[in-house]
Amino acid sequence: MQVAMIADKIIPLEQLDPIYLDRGFYFGDGVYEVIRSYNGKIFALEDHLQRFANSLNAIGIEGVKIEAVRSSILKAFDRASISNAKIYFHLTRGAAPRSHTWSDNLQPNFFLTVTELGDHSQAKTNGISVSTFPDWRWKRCDIKSLNLLANVLARQDATKKGCEEAILVDENNLITEGAGSSFFTIIADSLQTTPLTGNILPSITRKYVLEAAKALSIQIIEESLSPDHAKSADELFIAVTTRDIVPVVKFDDAVIADGKPGPYTRTLSERFREFTV
Amino acid sequence: MQVAMIADKIIPLEQLDPIYLDRGFYFGDGVYEVIRSYNGKIFALEDHLQRFANSLNAIGIEGVKIEAVRSSILKAFDRASISNAKIYFHLTRGAAPRSHTWSDNLQPNFFLTVTELGDHSQAKTNGISVSTFPDWRWKRCDIKSLNLLANVLARQDATKKGCEEAILVDENNLITEGAGSSFFTIIADSLQTTPLTGNILPSITRKYVLEAAKALSIQIIEESLSPDHAKSADELFIAVTTRDIVPVVKFDDAVIADGKPGPYTRTLSERFREFTV
Repeated sequence: MQVAMIADKIIPLEQLDPIYLDRGFYFGDGVYEVIRSYNGKIFALEDHLQRFANSLNAIGIEGVKIEAVRSSILKAFDRASISNAKIYFHLTRGAAPRSHTWSDNLQPNFFLTVTELGDHSQAKTNGISVSTFPDWRWKRCDIKSLNLLANVLARQDATKKGCEEAILVDENNLITEGAGSSFFTIIADSLQTTPLTGNILPSITRKYVLEAAKALSIQIIEESLSPDHAKSADELFIAVTTRDIVPVVKFDDAVIADGKPGPYTRTLSERFREFTV
Repeated sequence: MQVAMIADKIIPLEQLDPIYLDRGFYFGDGVYEVIRSYNGKIFALEDHLQRFANSLNAIGIEGVKIEAVRSSILKAFDRASISNAKIYFHLTRGAAPRSHTWSDNLQPNFFLTVTELGDHSQAKTNGISVSTFPDWRWKRCDIKSLNLLANVLARQDATKKGCEEAILVDENNLITEGAGSSFFTIIADSLQTTPLTGNILPSITRKYVLEAAKALSIQIIEESLSPDHAKSADELFIAVTTRDIVPVVKFDDAVIADGKPGPYTRTLSERFREFTV
């Protein structure tokens, strides 16, 4: 008799709840998005839906109607009625007995939560510390997939060191991005960040940071940079959907400039907020 | 009100079954093993348990008693009473509201299945075709983690091409291993395979193949090799727990030697089987 065991309980395999056969569990075979609202208004929904569609396409999950995803998001957001909400959703390829290959008749599984966004005003006012960690991630970080163990291990390492984010460094000693954020430097009045390749996520927040910089006529340099370069920067910040722009005042053992958030970071944050109203 | 949505059903977040908050889903934050039995006898259990312990340790899942895992495996295997069984099990870090970092009080979740092993006699008798795919995996393939999307995409590509396995090739045009197997060549009476690094899994079956080669006084070369090198080999084979040694008779567009399983592969298979009785 084929069996399954959950914790210490054995059951016949055919009685197993299909959730345990979800390919999200077995393989991380799914993609996700995190969206937020500002004061009751969802920010950049269409950008996130487009990236979600790109991720689905990249891993060959077919037949998902983006209109249906949009409508689910709006329905749940409306039901939650949370002003500053974090909307997380993922879609896995479906549930089936474990096999690397999949058949085309799988039914994808959609999951979403709407939760209260924390208040990050202290981090935004005072800045945060970050620490570096090797970038162990796969070569398709342009896909927002559920394979996030490398990110988890990096972030946990940062937390142990009393830092709020891990900055990932590749084998060429170049910064790719944060474990859960984009990374930016201000050096000589220019804004520098990693170019978009398979090594980083095409971050929506990054996109709007660059738009803010353009609107402010700040020069943009899309080139990778080393940890040493970052340490000697005039200003550093990370950007992420849930917190938009957060100043970085310490990078590993180096205090950045005078240890306080700088003027470019402040100006960019203010300009960014205009996109969200 | 914080909410969750499963498919198109919205529920209050606090009513959500904790299975949906499992970190295996959100991050692939867990490790696994696949073990088999031959004629009612589990093969290499202690090797698999040791590797499982190594994987747990590498991702910082603490407090798991390996004796308890062993006892669960034996209990489920006994209950299933399947002669040639495939035993799959994974352990995730636990369930919690989504956050990259984890707290130490999480309760890990153990899941296991015992299923009938398929008959692979045709593949073993006639050999299989394999195709190459870029190795997109992360840099810690020595950890047997649930982050397997790169393996899934590679295997699906192979299936589309009518092949049974994908052979992964890194950015230096060197073969690492199969998407779900180790890879071996016979060239000039020597057995060659990729050395153990963070780029490949320390395969238990690989270990016993090398022991078989030693017992047969076949020279072993642990060096990476290119696809072109593989195409001109005298023999090729893959090795994996569920099927042990499987001859490879076609590699991308190249037929290997005379297109039939070779004598070294056969001899190694016979010697390998002696370990399993």
